[in-house]
Amino acid sequence: MKFKKVLIVGIEESKLEPFFWKRIDAISEKKVYVPKDSSDIKKQLADSDCALLFLGTKFGREEIDAAPHLKYIGMFGTGYGRIDTVHAKTKGIIVTNIPRYSTEGVAEFVFAILLEHLRDLEKGKSQARAGNYSEFGFGAAEIKGKVFGILGLGRIGSRVAELALAFGADVRYWSRNKKSELEKKGIKYENTDVLITKCDFLSLHFALTKDTEKFLNRERIQKLKSGAIVINTAPMELIDINALEKRLGRWDITFILDHSDEMTADDLKKLSKHKNCIIYPPGAYLTKEATRAKQEIFVANIENFLKGVATNKVN
Amino acid sequence: MKFKKVLIVGIEESKLEPFFWKRIDAISEKKVYVPKDSSDIKKQLADSDCALLFLGTKFGREEIDAAPHLKYIGMFGTGYGRIDTVHAKTKGIIVTNIPRYSTEGVAEFVFAILLEHLRDLEKGKSQARAGNYSEFGFGAAEIKGKVFGILGLGRIGSRVAELALAFGADVRYWSRNKKSELEKKGIKYENTDVLITKCDFLSLHFALTKDTEKFLNRERIQKLKSGAIVINTAPMELIDINALEKRLGRWDITFILDHSDEMTADDLKKLSKHKNCIIYPPGAYLTKEATRAKQEIFVANIENFLKGVATNKVN
Repeated sequence: MKFKKVLIVGIEESKLEPFFWKRIDAISEKKVYVPKDSSDIKKQLADSDCALLFLGTKFGREEIDAAPHLKYIGMFGTGYGRIDTVHAKTKGIIVTNIPRYSTEGVAEFVFAILLEHLRDLEKGKSQARAGNYSEFGFGAAEIKGKVFGILGLGRIGSRVAELALAFGADVRYWSRNKKSELEKKGIKYENTDVLITKCDFLSLHFALTKDTEKFLNRERIQKLKSGAIVINTAPMELIDINALEKRLGRWDITFILDHSDEMTADDLKKLSKHKNCIIYPPGAYLTKEATRAKQEIFVANIENFLKGVATNKVN
Repeated sequence: MKFKKVLIVGIEESKLEPFFWKRIDAISEKKVYVPKDSSDIKKQLADSDCALLFLGTKFGREEIDAAPHLKYIGMFGTGYGRIDTVHAKTKGIIVTNIPRYSTEGVAEFVFAILLEHLRDLEKGKSQARAGNYSEFGFGAAEIKGKVFGILGLGRIGSRVAELALAFGADVRYWSRNKKSELEKKGIKYENTDVLITKCDFLSLHFALTKDTEKFLNRERIQKLKSGAIVINTAPMELIDINALEKRLGRWDITFILDHSDEMTADDLKKLSKHKNCIIYPPGAYLTKEATRAKQEIFVANIENFLKGVATNKVN
């Protein structure tokens, strides 16, 4: 069985190895590519029965209603917070995602960008490259002994918690559900609003849902401890950007993020003018190991759906 | 009791907080400062009874023989491989160092500079700063599952081993003595020459002694696995620089170091022209926590010697 028309939104050719594109070709009569923010999407959806979406593509009620023949939405990523999966279900559309592939990559990235900042590595490298080997002016802090807060103890949050414990941090978390296994290893559950006032480091690991949107709201952002370093490798919709911008202007916290590709130009402009906001291209999940696993799961999901044994359904 | 003349070699005023300089003033009749590579050192030593040395200062037989009144050498650091401690002992000179203060700081730094490289953070930051938020061209690798070799399992090497285990690496080591405690946690002992051929990452943690000088010799450097990343937060005397330069020219290994302040201009020139040699200012031990502990131990060592209860003697 094949799809009649596969609409590919934002997944550029370079995102999949030829081996995986060939497998997609084998199950498509026709393949059409549109960029993520193209105004053509709705028109193209009119006769599509399959939509493959790049991470961060908005796919709400409007898009779903524009696609009367759609049977399958394949998310090229883990997060699907911008897809109206409930409305899709009422139309008989199956949505799949790619869970788990990036756990280790994201957890390692959290420590990469935290340690980079704590040790001022960019400055060190460029100074040494210019021939200045003096350590003068560097003042680093250790992870050990600091209060390391984690919001959201899913797969990635749990792995970050384990690594923070290994570094000797005082690890505390809030999550929808308590995790007794990890508490036995030494991490402590705290009320979010208390936790936020205590953290030296705070790492966000919520999936984007209606409950977590702007979870870090104005009130919570104001409560962050002076000197805190906040790390967000999750969608920026978890944050009230205007409130964050205001707090950054006080110069007493640091915010590090990597979901820059999904932000509006306006929001990026607001944040990037603050030097205490460190912005990376989206890189947390981008390891060789994860990239290969991700492509395999993405394509297998499509193949399995057509075989009638859908895998990694989220609705 | 006070010293008549304290010769301070290379320890600039900024290296100690005023509180600690005051304590040194309290036990010195006279204090003289000379830079680390000053030709005045021997002349100044003629009437000094105390020498305080910055990390990396050469203090061999010649310097000791030029100092007939010397009673005490205080090392401002952990490593004392450039001091001829045996000859000092025959002259009744006590040498002290500052052990332990930097264990956590150095271990964290090893992961900081490894992860920075694996994730190409410098490029990511500067690209995003220039307004390009594309993840295209980034291809990172994970620590998990890689062979992580450690040479020298002292305090710092052991801590690095623990952290590498936490990251899920396959940790192997060679050290003068086997460490059964850490082997129980899952690290494996290997013959150096076998170990070197297997490592994806290799971190050096020997103290500098006659036995470890040029430990990474031509033969061993040639044996490094293609693609290996070697991290040296220990003195560069552990390495045959000419052999390293030759191997770097093959572009199939990466070498990351931070003891750049102790290297000759000639050696730095040889290495810095290779882009696969990443050089940092000496920063591994430079955390706020370690810096304060270091100053306290350094000054307490001097005070304790004068009280007749020398601490942290190394000869």
